[in-house]
Amino acid sequence: MISNHLHNGMESAKLMWSRLPNSEDADFEGLSPSESSGAGGGGSVESLDYEVIENYAYREEQAQRGKLYVGFYVGVKWFFALLIGVGTGLAAVFINISVENFAGWKYSLTFSIIQKSYIAGFIVFVLINLALVYSSVYIITQFAPAAAGSGIPELKGYLNGIDTHGILLFRTLIGKIFGSIGSVGGGLALGKEGPLVHTGACIASLLGQGGSTKYHLSSRWLQVFKSDRDRRDLVTCGCAAGVAAAFRAPVGGVLFALEEVTSWWRSQLMWRVFFTSAIVAVVVRTAMGWCKSGKCGHFGSGGFIIWDVSDGQEDYSFVELLPMAVIGVIGGLLGALFNQLTLYLTHWRRNYLHKRGSRVKMIEVCLISVITSAISFGLPLFRKCTPCPEVDVNSGIECPRPPGMYGNYVNFYCSNDKEYNDLATIFFNTQDDAIRNLFSAKTIHEFSAQSLLTFLVMFYSLAVVTFGTAVPAGQFVPGIMIGSTYGRLVGKFVVSFYKKLNIEEGTYALLGAASFLGGSMRMTVSLCVIMVEITNNLKLLPLIMLVLLISKAVGDAFNEGLYEEQARLRGIPLLESRPKYQMRQMTAKEACGNQKVVYFPRVAKVADVVSILMSNSHNGFPVIDHTRSGETLVIGLVLRSHLLVLLQSKADFQHSPLPSALRGRSLPIRHRISEFVKPASSKGLSIHDIHLSHDDLEMYIDLAPFVNPSPYIVPDDMSLTKVYNLFRQLGLRHIFVVPRASRVLGVITRKDLLIEGDEDSSAVELQSASVRSQRDKRLSKRNADVEPPLLDGLLG
Amino acid sequence: MISNHLHNGMESAKLMWSRLPNSEDADFEGLSPSESSGAGGGGSVESLDYEVIENYAYREEQAQRGKLYVGFYVGVKWFFALLIGVGTGLAAVFINISVENFAGWKYSLTFSIIQKSYIAGFIVFVLINLALVYSSVYIITQFAPAAAGSGIPELKGYLNGIDTHGILLFRTLIGKIFGSIGSVGGGLALGKEGPLVHTGACIASLLGQGGSTKYHLSSRWLQVFKSDRDRRDLVTCGCAAGVAAAFRAPVGGVLFALEEVTSWWRSQLMWRVFFTSAIVAVVVRTAMGWCKSGKCGHFGSGGFIIWDVSDGQEDYSFVELLPMAVIGVIGGLLGALFNQLTLYLTHWRRNYLHKRGSRVKMIEVCLISVITSAISFGLPLFRKCTPCPEVDVNSGIECPRPPGMYGNYVNFYCSNDKEYNDLATIFFNTQDDAIRNLFSAKTIHEFSAQSLLTFLVMFYSLAVVTFGTAVPAGQFVPGIMIGSTYGRLVGKFVVSFYKKLNIEEGTYALLGAASFLGGSMRMTVSLCVIMVEITNNLKLLPLIMLVLLISKAVGDAFNEGLYEEQARLRGIPLLESRPKYQMRQMTAKEACGNQKVVYFPRVAKVADVVSILMSNSHNGFPVIDHTRSGETLVIGLVLRSHLLVLLQSKADFQHSPLPSALRGRSLPIRHRISEFVKPASSKGLSIHDIHLSHDDLEMYIDLAPFVNPSPYIVPDDMSLTKVYNLFRQLGLRHIFVVPRASRVLGVITRKDLLIEGDEDSSAVELQSASVRSQRDKRLSKRNADVEPPLLDGLLG
Repeated sequence: MISNHLHNGMESAKLMWSRLPNSEDADFEGLSPSESSGAGGGGSVESLDYEVIENYAYREEQAQRGKLYVGFYVGVKWFFALLIGVGTGLAAVFINISVENFAGWKYSLTFSIIQKSYIAGFIVFVLINLALVYSSVYIITQFAPAAAGSGIPELKGYLNGIDTHGILLFRTLIGKIFGSIGSVGGGLALGKEGPLVHTGACIASLLGQGGSTKYHLSSRWLQVFKSDRDRRDLVTCGCAAGVAAAFRAPVGGVLFALEEVTSWWRSQLMWRVFFTSAIVAVVVRTAMGWCKSGKCGHFGSGGFIIWDVSDGQEDYSFVELLPMAVIGVIGGLLGALFNQLTLYLTHWRRNYLHKRGSRVKMIEVCLISVITSAISFGLPLFRKCTPCPEVDVNSGIECPRPPGMYGNYVNFYCSNDKEYNDLATIFFNTQDDAIRNLFSAKTIHEFSAQSLLTFLVMFYSLAVVTFGTAVPAGQFVPGIMIGSTYGRLVGKFVVSFYKKLNIEEGTYALLGAASFLGGSMRMTVSLCVIMVEITNNLKLLPLIMLVLLISKAVGDAFNEGLYEEQARLRGIPLLESRPKYQMRQMTAKEACGNQKVVYFPRVAKVADVVSILMSNSHNGFPVIDHTRSGETLVIGLVLRSHLLVLLQSKADFQHSPLPSALRGRSLPIRHRISEFVKPASSKGLSIHDIHLSHDDLEMYIDLAPFVNPSPYIVPDDMSLTKVYNLFRQLGLRHIFVVPRASRVLGVITRKDLLIEGDEDSSAVELQSASVRSQRDKRLSKRNADVEPPLLDGLLG
Repeated sequence: MISNHLHNGMESAKLMWSRLPNSEDADFEGLSPSESSGAGGGGSVESLDYEVIENYAYREEQAQRGKLYVGFYVGVKWFFALLIGVGTGLAAVFINISVENFAGWKYSLTFSIIQKSYIAGFIVFVLINLALVYSSVYIITQFAPAAAGSGIPELKGYLNGIDTHGILLFRTLIGKIFGSIGSVGGGLALGKEGPLVHTGACIASLLGQGGSTKYHLSSRWLQVFKSDRDRRDLVTCGCAAGVAAAFRAPVGGVLFALEEVTSWWRSQLMWRVFFTSAIVAVVVRTAMGWCKSGKCGHFGSGGFIIWDVSDGQEDYSFVELLPMAVIGVIGGLLGALFNQLTLYLTHWRRNYLHKRGSRVKMIEVCLISVITSAISFGLPLFRKCTPCPEVDVNSGIECPRPPGMYGNYVNFYCSNDKEYNDLATIFFNTQDDAIRNLFSAKTIHEFSAQSLLTFLVMFYSLAVVTFGTAVPAGQFVPGIMIGSTYGRLVGKFVVSFYKKLNIEEGTYALLGAASFLGGSMRMTVSLCVIMVEITNNLKLLPLIMLVLLISKAVGDAFNEGLYEEQARLRGIPLLESRPKYQMRQMTAKEACGNQKVVYFPRVAKVADVVSILMSNSHNGFPVIDHTRSGETLVIGLVLRSHLLVLLQSKADFQHSPLPSALRGRSLPIRHRISEFVKPASSKGLSIHDIHLSHDDLEMYIDLAPFVNPSPYIVPDDMSLTKVYNLFRQLGLRHIFVVPRASRVLGVITRKDLLIEGDEDSSAVELQSASVRSQRDKRLSKRNADVEPPLLDGLLG
C-alpha cells in the first residue's frame, strides 16, 4: 500500500514536471546573470553562470487537451510567424525610409550650401551628423544599453541557451530602431543590417510573451508560448526575418538563421522560418512599390540595399581566377586583422574606457562622429578632380551626376563643371550609394588607385574604431565597403593588365566584398546566397563561392569569426561546431573535474535548500532518494529557478519530513504553472530576493513533483567528444555522469521507433489511453515480479 | 595486482575498440540485408535488419600519429571533395552531351523523313526510341539492377544508416550513366536528374573505397577512409555534386544534400559540400564554354537545364496572388495524387509483375516506350495547326522555327508554312525544349487550353506509368513538365481575365512547376533555390516561396513525400523529422517491448556465440561481466559484424575461459584493423558463411577488446520523444535502456566543455600527454580510494 502511494507520488511528479512551463523539448532557462555592469555594448554577461539548454519530454498537458489544442497551438505558431514577418518588414521599411531621408536631406543641404561656402557646408555637415549620432548614443546610454552593437553575438548566445540580460526587451527594440536611424543617418562607419536582425528577434520575442509587461502593452491571449523552446523558435524566425528584410534576401535569411545563429536543425522550424522570410519579402516589396511613386521623400532610388550588378561581367576567363584568388587571400588577411583589432579595442574599451560611465561613452561616440565627418568631407578636398569620361548616353550614367540625385561621378570641389571628384564619389556619399558606385559596371577607370587606397585605409580605420561604441552597429555594410574597395583596386590592375573588353571592375568589387565578409564573419552558404540575392546576379555564384572558400580558409588560419570572438569576449560560452582535439583523450568524468556533486534529498529542509543555493551558483541539482535498503537512487534534476519559485511562494512547504504523497492521494500542486515561466524581460529571482522567516526555514519541501525525472545521462568513461556532440546536437544544459550500468533492460533500435501513426484523432486518443493503461499494467507488473521495484524503498 | 591486470585489459579494450575501423564518430554498419530479390527497381531491401548509425569516440590512433597525420587526413578529404566535384561534373557533361546528341539526331532524322512520309517517320521515330530504351533496360536488368529508379530513396536510406545492397557499386555507376542516356534519350517520361544524384554518390563512394575491387580498379593509397562516417560524408558530397551538376545549381545542391538527404547537420561537412558544388559549377561551366564553339554536336542551345526566364514578368500585382495560390493548391493536389498513384503502382509491380523475372521487366519498358512514342507523335497529328502570330523580330523568336533547330512554334503536320502545331511544340520535342517553350516569355497565346489540357492528362498518365520501371528515372523534369503545363493553363486565364500587358504565361508556368514539385517531393528551401537557380530570376523568389508553402501544406494533408513513400515501400526505415504524437505518452522501456535482451558474457564460448547469432537477427549485443560479488556490469556493445569477423578468422580463440588480459600483459590484438572494415561493395559476412570445427566450437573468445565501451544509454522511464530525438540527431543505431542510476558522479554543464584549445601543435601534444598522465593518475586514485573500483570484481 505504501509502495503504491509512493508510486503515485512519482507518477504525479512526472505529471507535475511535465506541466511545468519549460518542460518542452529543449528549453533553456536559468537565472539571468548579475547586474549588467554597463560596460561596452551594454547587456554584458560578466558573472554568467553558463546557462545551457536542456531537453525535456513533451507536455502531457497537450495530450490531455487533445488534438484540438494541438491544432490551435500549431495555428498560433504560424500566425505568429506571419506577425513576425509583417512586423519586421515594417520596422525595416521604417528604418530605411528614415535613414534615407535624414541622409538625403543632409547631403542635399550640404551640397546647396557648398555652392556658396565650403566652410559653412563643412560646419553644417558636421553638426547634422553630430546631432544624429548624439541622439543615437543618448538613446542607447540612457535608455537601452543592451541595444548597442550588432546584437548578433548575443542572439547567437541566446539561441545556444545563454541568456544575456536585456537583449530582448521592449526598450531594446525601441533603442535599436531609433538608435540605428541616428547612427547610420549620422554617417558613421557602420551598418543597419545587424541591428535589423536584432530588431526582428526583439519583435519575435515580444510577440511570444504577449507584449511588454512593463509598458502595459501585454495581451493575455497572446501568451500561448510559455516554454522557452517556443520562444527560441520565434526568435529564430525573427533573426531570419531581420536578414530577409535587411538585404531583401529571403533565402539568405533562412540560411543565416540556420547556419549561423542556431546550433541545431529541425525541418519543422526551417519550414516556418521559410514562411516568415517569404512574408517579409512580400511586405518589403509592397512598401517599396508604394514608395516608388515618390511618397517616401528621398527614399527611392537608394533605400534597401540592392546593388544590381546584372549588367555586369557575363563571362570570365581562366586567367581571371588568379586575381580572384588573390582577392580571396586579401579578404582573409584583412578580415582576420579586422577581427583581431576589434577584439583588442573592445577589450580595452570594456576594461578602461567604458567603466567610467555613460558620459565617456557619449563623448567617445561624438568624437568619432566629428572625425568621421571631417575625414569624409575633408579628404576629397585634397583630391584633384578628373575630367568626365565620354559616357554612353544609353547607359543612363551621367557625368557629373545631376545635383541632388544619386549616382556616380560626384562633382565636389571641382573647378570645372565637366569634372568629378572620385574620392568624393565614394567618401562623401551614403554607404549604400558608395557601394553602388563601386559595384557599378561600364564605369572603368572611374576611380584612381590612389583614391581607392586612401579610402580603404581611412575607412578601415574608421570601421575598426567605430566598432564597439555605444551605438547600434552592423558590420555588413562597412565590410562590403572595405571589400569592394580593394576588390575594385584589384579589378583596376586586371583591366589594365589583361586588356580585355569584357572585364568589369564592378565584378571584382563584388568579389572583394564577399571575400572581406568571408574573412571576417566566416559564413559560407548563407553569405553566398545573401551576396547573390543582393546583387541579383546568379552568374557570379561559382566565383563568389570560390572567393569565400579561400578567404574563410585564410581567415581561419589566424583567428575565429567576428561573432565568435565577440561572444567570447563578452563571456558568452558558445560551443564550437567541432569538439576540441584534446577531448578525444578525455572522459566524461574528467570533464566534471573534482567538482563535488551537490545533491538534494527528495524531501529537503527549507534551511538546507537555502544554504545550498547560497553556497554555489549551479543551476541544476540532482535529487536523490533512499531505497529501503539504504541505497541511493537518482530521481531527477531540479532547477535552481524552480526552487526559487517554490521558496518564494512557500505554498508547498510542509511540516512533515515525509514525502507528501504519503499523506493523501491528492496531488500537491498548489502552484499555477505560469509561476514557473521564466520572465523574459526581467532578471529573474535571486536567492537574495527571498526572505524566509525562522519558522519557514524549519519546514520541509517535497521536491518530487518538481523534478525532471529523466535528464540525459552518460556513463562516466564515455569519451568527451561524444558528450560534446550530445550537448551540442540536443542543446542540453545538464548531463548527469553516472556509473556504468549493472544491466541492460533493453536495446532500442531504429525499428522500435517506427511506430505507425494513426491520422485519425480519435484513434490516437484511444491508443494513447490504451498505452497508458498498458503502461500502468506493466509498471504494476514490474513492481510485482521480475524487476526490483524501482521506487519501493523510498521510505528510507 | 589482478585488478591491475584487469584494468589494463579494459584499457586495451578501449584502445582496440577505438582502433576498429568504424570507431569514428557516427559510423554505421551492419550486415547487408538478405539476397536482393531482384524485384522492383532492383536493390530491394526485403528482410532488412534495420541497420542504424552509432556514434563512437574518435580514434586514439589519430592522436597517436599526431597532428601531421590529421593534417594529411584533412588534406585528403578536401582532395577527395575536389575529385568528386570534377568526376560528377564530367559525368554530367557526358550524360548530357550523349542525350542531347541522341535526341537531336533522332528528331532531325524524323523531321527530314516526315517531309516525305509521316508513316515512315513514325516508324523510324518509334524504332529509334525503342532501341534506346531497350539498351537502357537491358543494361539495368542484366547488369546493374540497383541502378533502376532515381536512387534518391535508397541514398536517403544510406545516409540515414540503412544500407541497401548494391546501390554504390561500380556496376551501378556504369548502369546509371548508360541507362539514363538510353531512357532519357529514348523519350520516356522521366528525367536524368535523380540518376545524376545517384551517379555523384556512386563516384564519391567508389573514390572513398579506392576504386572498385572487383574490377581491379582499386588503388591502395586511396584507401584512407576506413570509417563509415567518412564514407557517408563523401556520399553526401556526391549527392550535392549530383544536384549541382544536374541543375547547374550549386547552392541548391548544398541545400538538397543537407535538407533532404541527411538527417543531421555539421558545419564542417557543409563547408566541404559547398566546395564540391563550387568545383562542379566550374567544371560544368568550362565544358559548356568548350561546347559553345560547336564541338559537341547537337549539344549547345539545349543541354543543361537552364530555363532562363530573366526576361519574364518584372512585377506582379496583388490580385495575381489569388491565381498563384490556386496554382499552389493544384500542385498540392496533383502532387499528392501522383505520390499515391505511383505508390499503388509500384506496390503492384513489385508484388505481381516484377516477380516474374527480368524478361517481363524488359517487355514492360518496351511497351511503355512504344506507347509513349505513339502518343507523342500521334496526338499532335489530330491537332489543327494555328497560324503564326506576328512576332517581334528583335525578340529572336521565329515562327515557325527553322527546321532542325530548337525553339518555339514547331511546324508539324501543318498544311501551311506559316502555321505551327502547338501540341507538337510541347509533345514532339525533348523535355528540356518543351519546358523552355512552356516557360518562354513574350509568347502569349502560343498554346491553346485544349492542347495544354491534353498534354497534361497524357503526360501525367505516362509519368505515373513510367515511374518504377526498370530504368534509371528521375522525377524532377517530368514534375516540371506537368507543373508548367497547368501553370501555363492558369496563366492563360489570368492573362485573358485581367487583361494587363505585363502578365506573362511563362511566369505562371514556372510557378506551376514549383508547385507540383513542392506537392510531390515536399522540399522547401532547397527546391526554392534550385528553381531560382535554373530559371536565373531572383525576382520571382517570394512568389515561388509562397507557392511552395501552399502546395507542400496541401500535399502534407494527404500523404508523405514521394521519396518517403517510396522508401517506406522498399522497407527502408527512415525516421521522420517529427516524432509520432503518441510517443509523448511512452517511455523508453515500452519501446523495447517485451523483447528479451540477448547478452554476451565477456568471455564467451564460441559455440554459444554461434548459437546466439543464429537464433536472432540483432546487430548489436550488450556485453556483461560479473563483479566479484556476483553483480553484473555492462562493459559495452559488440557488433554482429565484428563477431562474425572474429569467428571467421579464429585468431582470437583461446582455450581458457579467463579474460585474456590475465594471461599476460601483451594486448591480444591479432587482427588487422582493415579486417573489420565493412566491405562497401559486397554483402558482408553472414553467420551461415562461417564454418567452424567441433574443436573451434569448444574454445572461448574474450570480447573485451572488441566492444564499444560506452554506447549511449537512457534511463528506462525516459520519454520516447526524447529518445527519438537522441536517435535522430546523433544518428544512432543502438541505445541501451538501463535502470535508474543510484548516484551521480558529476554534472556536466556547458562550461565544462569549454576547454581552451592550444593552436600550437606541440602544446597540444604536451597537453594531451599531460591529460593522459593525469587521467591515469585519477584512474588509479579512483581505484584506490573514494569510489568503488569499477572493474575490480571482474574475476566473477
